Amino acid sequence: MTWYVLTIIGTIAFALSGAIVAMEEEYDVFGVVVLAMVTAFGGGLLRNLMIGLPVSDIWNQGALFNVALASALILILLPTRWIHHWLRFANMFDALGLSAFTIQGALYAASMKYPVGMVVVAAVITGIGGGVIRDVLAGRKPIVLRAEVYALWAMVAGAAIGFHVVNPSRSWQLYALLLVVFTLRMLSLAFGWHVPRRRFRAVPVPSGEEDAMPPSVP
Amino acid sequence: MTWYVLTIIGTIAFALSGAIVAMEEEYDVFGVVVLAMVTAFGGGLLRNLMIGLPVSDIWNQGALFNVALASALILILLPTRWIHHWLRFANMFDALGLSAFTIQGALYAASMKYPVGMVVVAAVITGIGGGVIRDVLAGRKPIVLRAEVYALWAMVAGAAIGFHVVNPSRSWQLYALLLVVFTLRMLSLAFGWHVPRRRFRAVPVPSGEEDAMPPSVP
Amino acid sequence: MTWYVLTIIGTIAFALSGAIVAMEEEYDVFGVVVLAMVTAFGGGLLRNLMIGLPVSDIWNQGALFNVALASALILILLPTRWIHHWLRFANMFDALGLSAFTIQGALYAASMKYPVGMVVVAAVITGIGGGVIRDVLAGRKPIVLRAEVYALWAMVAGAAIGFHVVNPSRSWQLYALLLVVFTLRMLSLAFGWHVPRRRFRAVPVPSGEEDAMPPSVP
Repeated sequence: MTWYVLTIIGTIAFALSGAIVAMEEEYDVFGVVVLAMVTAFGGGLLRNLMIGLPVSDIWNQGALFNVALASALILILLPTRWIHHWLRFANMFDALGLSAFTIQGALYAASMKYPVGMVVVAAVITGIGGGVIRDVLAGRKPIVLRAEVYALWAMVAGAAIGFHVVNPSRSWQLYALLLVVFTLRMLSLAFGWHVPRRRFRAVPVPSGEEDAMPPSVP
Repeated sequence: MTWYVLTIIGTIAFALSGAIVAMEEEYDVFGVVVLAMVTAFGGGLLRNLMIGLPVSDIWNQGALFNVALASALILILLPTRWIHHWLRFANMFDALGLSAFTIQGALYAASMKYPVGMVVVAAVITGIGGGVIRDVLAGRKPIVLRAEVYALWAMVAGAAIGFHVVNPSRSWQLYALLLVVFTLRMLSLAFGWHVPRRRFRAVPVPSGEEDAMPPSVP
Repeated sequence: MTWYVLTIIGTIAFALSGAIVAMEEEYDVFGVVVLAMVTAFGGGLLRNLMIGLPVSDIWNQGALFNVALASALILILLPTRWIHHWLRFANMFDALGLSAFTIQGALYAASMKYPVGMVVVAAVITGIGGGVIRDVLAGRKPIVLRAEVYALWAMVAGAAIGFHVVNPSRSWQLYALLLVVFTLRMLSLAFGWHVPRRRFRAVPVPSGEEDAMPPSVP
């Protein structure tokens, strides 16, 4: 029951993040709804595709669809001031969603007897897939690939379940894991942590020449 | 029979729209063919994926593949003047394709006993999926998410079939629905209708700074 | 055995090309790993999706995953000078990968009794799919659609197998085909061959106005 509440909170947070990105890109109301749905359900869809569950299973979440749709439609009608207000809490709810979704994704893969690596991948895809599709459809470079410590915590959840550190049949252990992932995500936001980068340029590119590309990477 | 003719017209219109976008983006002949095929068949492919039909079913449309391929190859050879001539009629044929494909997509979902919401989603995905993939592969923001009243008419088709307003076994009713969707699409083009937008900026962004992004939407 | 060595070489080359693109786009270490994996396995994933094999089959390549992952992680740690050194040979290894992967993709489709057209499509998707997903996730226009003679050689491999020019049970014939595809790819690089382009503009676009788009292509 409590877990379902967390899933609802995460769905709302993910849907709203998609809706806000769409509004920032000046998409119309239809685009806002599409990006909201894609962000909320894209991760589960990709995960099902990758681990061999029917993609159409995501349609069994009827109530969550209505929740995501309603979230997007309400957001469109809210005064700008209120949206700014929401954004002050958005990270917290998004972190709850990340935690709940990645644990859920890892449990799916673990229940199918996949090896640890796959469990981690399933956790990551469930957690970040929706945001990646959202950014691609918004014409943005996926932020999770370049700027945020986000996927790392999904890996932690996946590893904890894949290595049986956490016993899925003990729900208090799942809640403890959720708390760990949530806390790590909030800490990385509070302290502005970043995954390190390694820059590289195959050929010097004159600035503004966006089409230039090393001939060596076909 | 007549329905199949509509499918052929729609396939040609969609394939040509993909080919033209590729030529505008200065893609080579291979890119033109890929975008033509993707625009013509991407919607059906995504729909099959989402509603649980085998994606490989789209290969059963052998004749349509040849039609789409030939359309793209002929377009490449046509004088520019002729392409401009085609563009004056392109919208009409595209609207026919939209109508035929969305109704077809809705019928697939309805025959699988999906609820209304899913029938609408299947209609929309069939109608717009190809164009969305085309735009993503062309490095564009999907136009259907931001500028055109296009998907709304796909929803009308989906709702009409999902709510049993139209009886699929009466072919005159399907043709009537097709005429309605087609007319709505042509009207929205003639009068320049737009789906309303709601703009929003999480943080003020200095112009030209495309990488800036609100830290709040991970 | 030898074939497996070729697959390993191709996997490394594809993974490194993804990692380098990610570093060029200033993605973080997580993004580098994701683009490496996506480039190495995206083609096989898309091919399985299109020809009706389980997408989750790609997880059976456990050893190759470790190879791709290790390649990306090692690259991140290498001195810039060494990466430039690698780039001088990258094309050769990438051409080996292209040859091995497209032949493998064509064999999958041929073994499922698909018609020639499908065998060619399967070869092309296996060969270029990873690079296309890589470029989309990097916010680039897929280079294979606009600048390189790359997919054409995949088509050659597909046609040779689809038309039974090559007998798959004679491994020397497969190696001969591999050599042909490899040589064609290296020649097209050495001589800077390009697939021809056909430019077209539906409406004159003032330069710098990237959002302009012909109203005729919805």
